[in-house]
Amino acid sequence: MPASNSNVPAVSATLCRFVADTTWDDLPDDVIHAAKRSLLNFFGTAFAGSGDVALDRTVATLLEFTGTGAATMIGRRQHVDPLTAAFVNGAAGNVHDFDDTHLRTVIHPTAPVAPALLALAERQKISGRAFLLALALGIEATLRIGNAVSPGHYARGWHITATCGVFGAALASGKLLELDAERLVFALGSASAQSSGLVETLGFMAKSIGVGAAARGGLLAALLAEQGLDGPARPLEGPRGFLQVTSENPDFSDVTRGLGHHWEILRNIHKPYPCGVVLFSVIDACMALLEQGTIAVSDIQTITLFGHPLLRQRADRPDVTTGREAQVSAQHAVAATLIFGAAGLAQFSDQAVNDPRVLAFRKKVLMKDDGEIGVAGVHVVIVTMDGVAHEIAIDGARGTDARPLTDGEIEDKFITLAGEGAPSCPQANDLIARIWALDQIDDVGTIMALARA
Amino acid sequence: MPASNSNVPAVSATLCRFVADTTWDDLPDDVIHAAKRSLLNFFGTAFAGSGDVALDRTVATLLEFTGTGAATMIGRRQHVDPLTAAFVNGAAGNVHDFDDTHLRTVIHPTAPVAPALLALAERQKISGRAFLLALALGIEATLRIGNAVSPGHYARGWHITATCGVFGAALASGKLLELDAERLVFALGSASAQSSGLVETLGFMAKSIGVGAAARGGLLAALLAEQGLDGPARPLEGPRGFLQVTSENPDFSDVTRGLGHHWEILRNIHKPYPCGVVLFSVIDACMALLEQGTIAVSDIQTITLFGHPLLRQRADRPDVTTGREAQVSAQHAVAATLIFGAAGLAQFSDQAVNDPRVLAFRKKVLMKDDGEIGVAGVHVVIVTMDGVAHEIAIDGARGTDARPLTDGEIEDKFITLAGEGAPSCPQANDLIARIWALDQIDDVGTIMALARA
Repeated sequence: MPASNSNVPAVSATLCRFVADTTWDDLPDDVIHAAKRSLLNFFGTAFAGSGDVALDRTVATLLEFTGTGAATMIGRRQHVDPLTAAFVNGAAGNVHDFDDTHLRTVIHPTAPVAPALLALAERQKISGRAFLLALALGIEATLRIGNAVSPGHYARGWHITATCGVFGAALASGKLLELDAERLVFALGSASAQSSGLVETLGFMAKSIGVGAAARGGLLAALLAEQGLDGPARPLEGPRGFLQVTSENPDFSDVTRGLGHHWEILRNIHKPYPCGVVLFSVIDACMALLEQGTIAVSDIQTITLFGHPLLRQRADRPDVTTGREAQVSAQHAVAATLIFGAAGLAQFSDQAVNDPRVLAFRKKVLMKDDGEIGVAGVHVVIVTMDGVAHEIAIDGARGTDARPLTDGEIEDKFITLAGEGAPSCPQANDLIARIWALDQIDDVGTIMALARA
Repeated sequence: MPASNSNVPAVSATLCRFVADTTWDDLPDDVIHAAKRSLLNFFGTAFAGSGDVALDRTVATLLEFTGTGAATMIGRRQHVDPLTAAFVNGAAGNVHDFDDTHLRTVIHPTAPVAPALLALAERQKISGRAFLLALALGIEATLRIGNAVSPGHYARGWHITATCGVFGAALASGKLLELDAERLVFALGSASAQSSGLVETLGFMAKSIGVGAAARGGLLAALLAEQGLDGPARPLEGPRGFLQVTSENPDFSDVTRGLGHHWEILRNIHKPYPCGVVLFSVIDACMALLEQGTIAVSDIQTITLFGHPLLRQRADRPDVTTGREAQVSAQHAVAATLIFGAAGLAQFSDQAVNDPRVLAFRKKVLMKDDGEIGVAGVHVVIVTMDGVAHEIAIDGARGTDARPLTDGEIEDKFITLAGEGAPSCPQANDLIARIWALDQIDDVGTIMALARA
């Protein structure tokens, strides 16, 4: 049973006061830069996601009901009302789980937060600085709330990106609407009444409905709070509030400890490959092998992955049949990377998984534990047909804290993804430039023209 | 931790097959009648609810975003899109907690279900029989899912009307859209991704956002399923599905046992007074005292309630300050009923609670346990200023199973409530007649003109 209110700190009020009081000048440079990186990455995944069948069906459903409005659905042509745009862009940004990722919680924080803000930015004039401030605060709030309920919340079956994202979207939207701390608490209350998302839906289109609803619900919560629609004083920490109901032992202090000094957004990573983090080093090794060019793929007899036991526990899946499952299959990751010479969305599609060349090659992939190797590393031993062994070692995988994607790599990822949407992004380079310079832009809504089909 | 899939019966599939296969001819007469009673009661509470400030603020927010559509917001003038109408009418129907109530679960099932169907009925021609069939099935599904997670789910902090109502709204909407069983399971999946609602919000306007979102989310889930948006095979019973995530020990069989033979909708009650069920007999006794006319209220020295211990445990609250708290205060209920001669919404308002005459009178109300008295009864001893004791005994309270409201009493309640909306219902008697004759009506959408301001 949830505890009572006694001894529970007022984290909703504290968090909301922080959001209300924080100004552009309070943001460290690395936080601003992290927000831009997440936004650029988000635009890429949303472009690619806009071509997914889940999005086609969602948009086909929602277009009948949309109100008038200038809001853009990324990668599409129609204008819709802001709530609808937030829903669709939230779903698109996360549909491939290729958006930014906070490893401690496994939250993808930008997909629910950024779409709410982009929709507002097409409704009213919003400066780049106000936008980045709200984005950083919304991501930060999402991650902190997620920390407070992790790891039990996700393990229990809550799709944490959606359940926590709605709060970040609400606070970020409320910040753009210039709500005071009391109204931000109201927004958290209406967000709490819409917090949802179940892990059972992962791997199905219904997952995206949860994420879209988080973006839309957060925006709606802030708009309702602006109208004075009230809520409880302790929507997060109250005895029947979000933290105590959805977690066995929430750590309330995770929400508020070091606010303004410690920034959880800096722990956000950007995936180089659309698969589980444990496979990043494996794919790095395969890419290095291809780059060396000394061994023909057809000449490989076996390829053995020596890794931290976690690698085998998570990713020893030789017989996967769908792209979704392949995201955590070391055998598929090796086979597809070496056969196709790349490890992007196409290489983790159902089609790639069932390609006869991939099916044949993955039998050559073996896995062995080596506790000496870190979780972000792998040692790969390739035995060629002549019986000779060759070795490649990766210590810190691309995308992890050891070797975060560079800005250039995020740009490259964006360019690739922006070519994979339903229609591709016609002005990708322009959009990249605007995002890096967002703090110099007067009216963020104007960049959305570049994100339309 | 949730259990695995093994040994878990396929309740999602079974429930959806039942919904898909059940026809009008399968409905027992008492089930049809129960659905009509719930619908009539709902229209009354939605009319009265439409005047609540929570609804004014919700509508003020949503009107900017609504699409075109012929859908009616009960008690209002504007037409909105069906999703928006479902949201607003769901919120309005439940805002006072005066809609139909299933005592085992404390679910108010019609508020999330009926609005989704009414919105569809203004979008496409729906016969009265199709409508009543879908309504009965949606209510039934909501209550059965609620039974499976009760009592732990609500006790933990889930606002069960919203969390379970979204499933009933999805199945009922799917029935009207003539989805097959497989697509109904898809609809449950998208409903599960939107299932939300926290008890912490009760007593605040944010509560209504959860209920509105349930009605809207259920309708959306069905429309998405119609487009082929897929979901997991076991959205309810899967290891990370609704039942196992939101309950410690769900009874899966509650969802499917006796489907088509046992109808949980028949256990739905209609409140005679807008307060906790334990107070119904107390108010009955006060009304009887007034009707007898032999004792002047001003002549009462003390009034002692002898009741089942539950009455005192739930309702011994002599010092309440808000209408919301007063709903579970025996002292207020007695004082307000005797002072005002009625026990309607006005008598449970903040204003009534703080009326000096009520404040003075409630000090005269005493409570004593008597384990011999049933939970639906009360023995009241009134001592007048001359020291003489008078007694009134109520065995089965109005509104409970012992003495359900008659059809005429539900009509009277509707007439009263329909006069308490923002604007009152101009054609209340016409609407009553149409609801009783709903199975003879070709196009349910036509009755909504009577529900507009």
